[in-house]
Amino acid sequence: MSQPSGPIDDFWAVIPAGGAGTRLWPLSRSAYPKFLRDLTGSGRSLLQETHDRLAPLTDGRFLVVTGRAHREPVLEQLADLDESSVLAEPSARDSMAAIGLAAAVLERTQPDAVMGSFAADHVITESEEFRACVRTAVTVAREGWLVTLGITPTFPSSAFGYLQLGAALPGHPGVAAVQRFVEKPSVAVAEEYLATGQYRWNAGMFVVRPGVLLDLLATWHPEFAATLRVIAAEPDRLDELWPALPKIALDHAVAEPAADAGRVVTVPSTFGWEDIGDFDSLAALLHALGDASGHDPVVAGPRVLGDDALVRPVDSTGLVVPQSGRMIAVVGLDDVVVVDTPDALLVTTRARAQEVKQIVTALKDGGHADLT
Amino acid sequence: MSQPSGPIDDFWAVIPAGGAGTRLWPLSRSAYPKFLRDLTGSGRSLLQETHDRLAPLTDGRFLVVTGRAHREPVLEQLADLDESSVLAEPSARDSMAAIGLAAAVLERTQPDAVMGSFAADHVITESEEFRACVRTAVTVAREGWLVTLGITPTFPSSAFGYLQLGAALPGHPGVAAVQRFVEKPSVAVAEEYLATGQYRWNAGMFVVRPGVLLDLLATWHPEFAATLRVIAAEPDRLDELWPALPKIALDHAVAEPAADAGRVVTVPSTFGWEDIGDFDSLAALLHALGDASGHDPVVAGPRVLGDDALVRPVDSTGLVVPQSGRMIAVVGLDDVVVVDTPDALLVTTRARAQEVKQIVTALKDGGHADLT
Repeated sequence: MSQPSGPIDDFWAVIPAGGAGTRLWPLSRSAYPKFLRDLTGSGRSLLQETHDRLAPLTDGRFLVVTGRAHREPVLEQLADLDESSVLAEPSARDSMAAIGLAAAVLERTQPDAVMGSFAADHVITESEEFRACVRTAVTVAREGWLVTLGITPTFPSSAFGYLQLGAALPGHPGVAAVQRFVEKPSVAVAEEYLATGQYRWNAGMFVVRPGVLLDLLATWHPEFAATLRVIAAEPDRLDELWPALPKIALDHAVAEPAADAGRVVTVPSTFGWEDIGDFDSLAALLHALGDASGHDPVVAGPRVLGDDALVRPVDSTGLVVPQSGRMIAVVGLDDVVVVDTPDALLVTTRARAQEVKQIVTALKDGGHADLT
Repeated sequence: MSQPSGPIDDFWAVIPAGGAGTRLWPLSRSAYPKFLRDLTGSGRSLLQETHDRLAPLTDGRFLVVTGRAHREPVLEQLADLDESSVLAEPSARDSMAAIGLAAAVLERTQPDAVMGSFAADHVITESEEFRACVRTAVTVAREGWLVTLGITPTFPSSAFGYLQLGAALPGHPGVAAVQRFVEKPSVAVAEEYLATGQYRWNAGMFVVRPGVLLDLLATWHPEFAATLRVIAAEPDRLDELWPALPKIALDHAVAEPAADAGRVVTVPSTFGWEDIGDFDSLAALLHALGDASGHDPVVAGPRVLGDDALVRPVDSTGLVVPQSGRMIAVVGLDDVVVVDTPDALLVTTRARAQEVKQIVTALKDGGHADLT
């Protein structure tokens, strides 16, 4: 391939860094959510890995949008960013407000910008291929399209939304129109999708010119777009105007109606992508990474996220997260999940990992919000 | 019943306080073994409960025999004992040496003494009935018998030794000769024993005059008995003579051959008795105690040894021991065992509880003896 490898002119990486990650408690906390955590054992947090993956394309052009409580840790983790690169939301108002705020700021200050929005808490295992897809997406986005990266499904997941491919986009080999977005289907419906070969996972990764995004938003939510543009022009009014913004995902506010209007295209992609929703998917990811690394692919015992020397397994499988420095012995349990932190301990199974959310709710209701 | 209720003249309670309790790691440690722990949630350690159970019979006459490393914590826990009431073994040499040392000291200093030896780490649930049995045993022991308390089996255990009842002892209703002691049988053999009604569990509780015990020992191990008597006469020679004493249990050294020689009788007893060997038996005991107390006998969820408020179970059963002050969430695990201490954590199942011993061995071999 003769793809160029340097930064992309005028390309800005927007990183919405939000989400509570309550199903990853006690590793993920409201004060220190999963995007600030190293969930792959790489030594870098998910946010840092997201940054590192995009840095070769941006020449330092980043906008991270995060909650006020997380602004300081974000700046600490991304030491090369200056303060103006981190936008702090007064409150969480879902992805349209977060990404729209970044778009409005860029529209005003960077007239030639193309932005790409990538969540801070996704895991991507083939960075080179990811960057090649982004490069293609930027080229297409310059022409005024809303471009999404469509992930090739590896199994009929009922946990992700899908997009249906339409006609090929002339002049851009491999790029196709998005005929429609569909919500999380049942596994049976997902199996039908995969059989057609015409569906991709919607990972919520969008590449678009900021003005195009805001104009599309203005088509269906004119006041929303206007308010974002006022905030960009008069930053002092952020606290006043922000609370009135609708809580809505970018997919619903813009992507779905824009697809219906024939304004969305996708770069179908085959890089490995994971949205770590709970300890079951984290265990699966760590197994996949361990196998891919060539290290002990058939080794017995649980995966360890942290210091292996702190875990003494006997005839056990699953996931152990030693984060308190204590020795952890696990005897005779299959697919167990043990997450050991200085002030809270979780013991469950991969099959029950979804229910961890209940614990967080119960702790909040029981006067232990400090542990959530 | 017209049983007297005060102290028994010249009765000395001997409490051998030894045993590593490695299957109760990380609750039981070599520096702080299970007899120093509260394993029933009573607020008193097993040693303290043993003391409290015997105190009404002894009028302060106690001899605790323990390892040097445990002498200080024993004296701290039993504040009413003076220093001369705690004999420190230079090293662990099994129960014959420990109990024999106490016998030799008493033989020399208390010519009319009858001693009763009761391990520091057993649980007895009916103290009044226990004391009534001890009272009977002392009466019989004054006549020169080696008297054992024979526990009525509640199930065909393969974890305990048994004794077989012989002829009734004239003049002492309910007391019978011990025809023989038998080692831990298979469950099938234990079932046969129970069917006959002629077998009792051997709990290693002996009541005897110190001189009788030493004379019996001298019959089969003359040098052993002589050395113990030298140590009692010349305490300064303890360190010199102790290492040469055989490592042998009192059952093998004296009780078994004495039974064959027709010198052992038993007071059959029906008080509740538990030797907490591992977390499975501890869980069973806590279930039994919970049921007996009339509290929530049908409550769902795991038993908690410690502060209930630190445990958040969802659809789980088993045993949780919160000892580090941290919050513990357990989701979707049946018969799980979670033991949380400040420097080590154990997660296993009741069925696999026996294997915890392997962890202790592995930690020692792996340079982590400090955690054992």
